[in-house]
Amino acid sequence: MNPGGLGSSGAQGAAGESDERRLAWAYLSRVVLGPCPALTALIDSIGIVEAARAVRERELPDVLRAATAQRRSRDLAAQDLEAIQALGGRLVTPDDPEWPAWRMLGLSQLQPGRDPDGAVPLVFWVRGNRNLAELTERALAVVGARCSTGYGDRVAGALAGELAAHGWTVVSGAAFGIDGMAHRAALAVGGATIAVMACGADRPYPAQHDRLLDRIAETGLVISEYPPGTVARKHHFLARNRLIAALSDGVLVVEAGIRSGARNTVKWARRMGRPALAVPGSVDSAASAGCHRMIRDGEATLVACVDDILADAAPLHLPVAGRATAPGEQLTGAQAAVYAALPDTGGCWPHELCAATGVAVAEVRAALAALDLAGLAGSAESGWYRLRPKAGNTTPRSRGQQ
Amino acid sequence: MNPGGLGSSGAQGAAGESDERRLAWAYLSRVVLGPCPALTALIDSIGIVEAARAVRERELPDVLRAATAQRRSRDLAAQDLEAIQALGGRLVTPDDPEWPAWRMLGLSQLQPGRDPDGAVPLVFWVRGNRNLAELTERALAVVGARCSTGYGDRVAGALAGELAAHGWTVVSGAAFGIDGMAHRAALAVGGATIAVMACGADRPYPAQHDRLLDRIAETGLVISEYPPGTVARKHHFLARNRLIAALSDGVLVVEAGIRSGARNTVKWARRMGRPALAVPGSVDSAASAGCHRMIRDGEATLVACVDDILADAAPLHLPVAGRATAPGEQLTGAQAAVYAALPDTGGCWPHELCAATGVAVAEVRAALAALDLAGLAGSAESGWYRLRPKAGNTTPRSRGQQ
Repeated sequence: MNPGGLGSSGAQGAAGESDERRLAWAYLSRVVLGPCPALTALIDSIGIVEAARAVRERELPDVLRAATAQRRSRDLAAQDLEAIQALGGRLVTPDDPEWPAWRMLGLSQLQPGRDPDGAVPLVFWVRGNRNLAELTERALAVVGARCSTGYGDRVAGALAGELAAHGWTVVSGAAFGIDGMAHRAALAVGGATIAVMACGADRPYPAQHDRLLDRIAETGLVISEYPPGTVARKHHFLARNRLIAALSDGVLVVEAGIRSGARNTVKWARRMGRPALAVPGSVDSAASAGCHRMIRDGEATLVACVDDILADAAPLHLPVAGRATAPGEQLTGAQAAVYAALPDTGGCWPHELCAATGVAVAEVRAALAALDLAGLAGSAESGWYRLRPKAGNTTPRSRGQQ
Repeated sequence: MNPGGLGSSGAQGAAGESDERRLAWAYLSRVVLGPCPALTALIDSIGIVEAARAVRERELPDVLRAATAQRRSRDLAAQDLEAIQALGGRLVTPDDPEWPAWRMLGLSQLQPGRDPDGAVPLVFWVRGNRNLAELTERALAVVGARCSTGYGDRVAGALAGELAAHGWTVVSGAAFGIDGMAHRAALAVGGATIAVMACGADRPYPAQHDRLLDRIAETGLVISEYPPGTVARKHHFLARNRLIAALSDGVLVVEAGIRSGARNTVKWARRMGRPALAVPGSVDSAASAGCHRMIRDGEATLVACVDDILADAAPLHLPVAGRATAPGEQLTGAQAAVYAALPDTGGCWPHELCAATGVAVAEVRAALAALDLAGLAGSAESGWYRLRPKAGNTTPRSRGQQ
């Protein structure tokens, strides 16, 4: 963080000021432990360093005096910053270029009176090397029941995997069931995924997802608005759900019981004007009852495949480069289906593509040949895989150039 | 039909006139073989007998001359009436008290220019003893894929059976798959069902549903706008679908492929302002793809249970006695669930009700005891069955009276 090597007192002064601000953010993050609109308003008004001083010295309006009373006298900022760094992590604050400012607009535009819990988070405590702003540029939340069924696991895996292979970051909550399947599917295709925690980013929660969270941190991000060591409490989960929705272009619910927390995440998405999508299932399945209820009540749109999801969530991205990096969208018919079904890594065979797409095997072979010629597919001992054209080159090379 | 015994020439004259009109309706039914808005307009303008004469003598505007040219010279009215009577059936015309005039309003209010095929049928050729107008007073169409899955069959059977047990007439098209399951389920609970045919009401179509159609005619109705002997042609099915929608309070689609005829029936329902409902299923199932598409596109509302269906389709019936004859709707919680699951005939055991409702067996037993006390359930060697309170007595007898 220290720019180093410049040696001017001005640069040192700037570094010192930066550290002071960073410590102030870390301190206040632990003091309020979660969303606190009044503190956000104070920071907006007098700045982070002054706000931290005011909290320390209790020069506060009543509402903030109560909210900060319990932990204001305990400053663990330096230890917390060390703890997250020891895990290869960092603190991301609104001062940082990787602060997902555009994403946070959704929260900052909520009316504080109507959504007292809808505040912008003070900071993100982050594990992983990826840039938070970049990773959330094209992101979809995939959430659902902890007690998922085999059907839900399969569909969550298929959809999250396909979205990740299309370049979408899969955002979820690392819970059992659908959340875990969504993360795993994104990892499996070498895609990006973000776990948003209701406890500190350093804590494996649930404990059985210890290794999964490590893997997410290796190629994606594990993030939290709570400082390291924070234990997950019931109200943290609801606050966490607002962040899952805020960091995403839309929320996809794969399975949800009638009282599922996924419905809460959907509520946040809708408040921020973002698409809420739900996958239907058997009417006999209690694990789909919440999805059916949301679709029926107009709280979520029915989606049955990735095309449906992209049709609803992608319009926000029409002018964005990300759209152009998905050449599959310029294809039609069997070629589009086969391209979408090709793995980014590993490989698969025509009969597998046939089963996955419903396209006849002869058409699959013809499509593969055309995709090969267009530089969009390659083959090896392990079978066929997807190729992405060079950035900026969205027209298949084969067209009149070979 | 002849009032008989009066012996006055006036009465004889009336009977003669009635026969003349009936012959005219039958004649024109065979001449046009299906919807013909121009002929309907002519009949409305100059009366049925005059219209038949005009057709016979070719005193017609060009559009009607073309529409009637092929069969106008062949008058089989007397034979057709004999044929349907030989099957224990009859011709129902707008002259008859059992003409479903209220139902046909939906069709007559369609704009002829926009819906050239949306004409009110001239007549119904009917097999069965029930009164057509009465039987369609509370009616729901239950339609869907011919190539249904085990899931679709099960759900169609459960929903149609429960609707029929609630006093709703189940209207369908007697096709393989969902249609057949819907009719069978209604028959199984001793409920009313109507098969609307795309061929003559005397023809078993499909041939394998010969016995099913006989059973429908025994306790419900098999009806057609085509005269006896008419063979089903492709365009008849689309015209038939408008009658299924017109005779019902709403159309429920249980499974439908992406190009299913059920979508056509839904289109008719929507044109007439009647609820279109669709049951979701697995996103992997091609047999649910049409349902999902209709829900997604806002063409149909997702329904997952009979309560959903009644909430959407029953408002039209709020002030009607039929509503009051469903005491299950005054029950709540476990009692409501158990009451809905009880068979009208035969019997079933607490553990079966437990499996059917998801209510714990102890609660099932408590609910059965309460329903027994209220006169809404009875038990015998074969298990528990549903009892209906006397007409007009919608308050369970037990409340303060025992």
